[in-house]
Amino acid sequence: MAVVLRRRIDFPLVDMAGIVYYPQYWDLCHRFFEGSWPEIIGLDYPTIIAKRRLGFPAVGNQCEFHAPLRYGDTVECKLWISHVGTSSLEWQYRYSNQDGLLVWSAQVTTVCVGMDDLKPCPIPDDFREGLIACSEDGGLK
Amino acid sequence: MAVVLRRRIDFPLVDMAGIVYYPQYWDLCHRFFEGSWPEIIGLDYPTIIAKRRLGFPAVGNQCEFHAPLRYGDTVECKLWISHVGTSSLEWQYRYSNQDGLLVWSAQVTTVCVGMDDLKPCPIPDDFREGLIACSEDGGLK
Amino acid sequence: MAVVLRRRIDFPLVDMAGIVYYPQYWDLCHRFFEGSWPEIIGLDYPTIIAKRRLGFPAVGNQCEFHAPLRYGDTVECKLWISHVGTSSLEWQYRYSNQDGLLVWSAQVTTVCVGMDDLKPCPIPDDFREGLIACSEDGGLK
Amino acid sequence: MAVVLRRRIDFPLVDMAGIVYYPQYWDLCHRFFEGSWPEIIGLDYPTIIAKRRLGFPAVGNQCEFHAPLRYGDTVECKLWISHVGTSSLEWQYRYSNQDGLLVWSAQVTTVCVGMDDLKPCPIPDDFREGLIACSEDGGLK
Repeated sequence: MAVVLRRRIDFPLVDMAGIVYYPQYWDLCHRFFEGSWPEIIGLDYPTIIAKRRLGFPAVGNQCEFHAPLRYGDTVECKLWISHVGTSSLEWQYRYSNQDGLLVWSAQVTTVCVGMDDLKPCPIPDDFREGLIACSEDGGLK
Repeated sequence: MAVVLRRRIDFPLVDMAGIVYYPQYWDLCHRFFEGSWPEIIGLDYPTIIAKRRLGFPAVGNQCEFHAPLRYGDTVECKLWISHVGTSSLEWQYRYSNQDGLLVWSAQVTTVCVGMDDLKPCPIPDDFREGLIACSEDGGLK
Repeated sequence: MAVVLRRRIDFPLVDMAGIVYYPQYWDLCHRFFEGSWPEIIGLDYPTIIAKRRLGFPAVGNQCEFHAPLRYGDTVECKLWISHVGTSSLEWQYRYSNQDGLLVWSAQVTTVCVGMDDLKPCPIPDDFREGLIACSEDGGLK
Repeated sequence: MAVVLRRRIDFPLVDMAGIVYYPQYWDLCHRFFEGSWPEIIGLDYPTIIAKRRLGFPAVGNQCEFHAPLRYGDTVECKLWISHVGTSSLEWQYRYSNQDGLLVWSAQVTTVCVGMDDLKPCPIPDDFREGLIACSEDGGLK
């Protein structure tokens, strides 16, 4: 099932035109990504890095900006995993503002790597069930 | 002709895995974008915003991460404009490290807007010649 | 009375030594500052800027780092106002981690300015009662 | 002798009031600090961290903001070391804009630590001469 998380648009995210500076969408995206792990597999990302010695760096980004985000807005992020490969994952992000307006759609491809050598490795078996269940509608694929 | 700019990878760009945090590629990308205007049309971006009251916000991002950037690396960015529309521009970015290794390829679509209402407007005529000449090989399109 | 707010230490705040990069303490500090306004005077900072056309920029910073913050920590910020002047405010910040260890003490002086000219102006009367009541122990001064 | 370094105020440093967001002064400060090492002891900071396994984290900050920095400004930083202790250093920073106006004065205390345990250790002997010579006027202390 998709994960839904929210954050307020704080002052430092906003540029002199009064709208969120676009690289901040990616920074928020990473924070939502991190925040989703406990809901997806029941482990938080700090633990995955420190104890499992695994990371999931991005290897591809793609997005469209539909409408600006402004200071004081609350962004709601719906995220799900559209593909689970051997070591790669394809993540979908949809940001809406507090009025339900879709403001951003993005796709991020990540690859599972060992933290010690940053080399790709298979996604652990005990992660797979949760990741697969995190589809848009929660159905198995 | 393509523009080539360089920046050192400073400490704050690097994450706990010792590599550049991926949203920082986009922040660098915006800084290279800004830095390219004087070379492309002979005006700097602060002047375009303050005096011409125009901005060029991103409406689409796309990229691939080929290899990590590390602390102390120097990134060389080659950038050019692959399409000039009525109000849109398609920008290409290629980052290499100090060994000439390609580390990142990206495309950003921007739209010309008035700074007062953030509404799309045509790219001014006196900008077009420089923008068109900023193709990968400098030829007209 | 002092205000207490909490934030998780997200991945982008952490440097390659595995601890929070020190300018991020100040960025957090500004976010806590912003977050405290609704509790102090019942107005949020975006409204103060947009509707009241007032801002409270920092004119002085002072801090001591007592112990590092790490990825995944939760920082608890206790903040209060130690002095209310005509246009200046003196803010106190104490950060503790999830184990109750004091990690950072800071003082920030701000000045009330009009957003249109960034010139100092008196703190509005309807703000004063709340600001004065936000002392360490809630007593009047 | 004091070190003088310059940076342009890029777009991402500026807030919606059109001036540099104050935590960015500290981020710039760290970047100037890093940039000064080759001039002070002939080693760059990435090498000090990676090869010498030493770091110089901040343990205290103090500053005054005298005038705003704006988008497109060039900040000139004069920095020197006002005290060399066994493991601590006291750094002075003075930022001026392109018109020579003093905009920021700061002092940062750092402590020399081993990168593996982040525990304080004495500043290496081969660093001391350069550090002592980096006084405001270049005289020995």
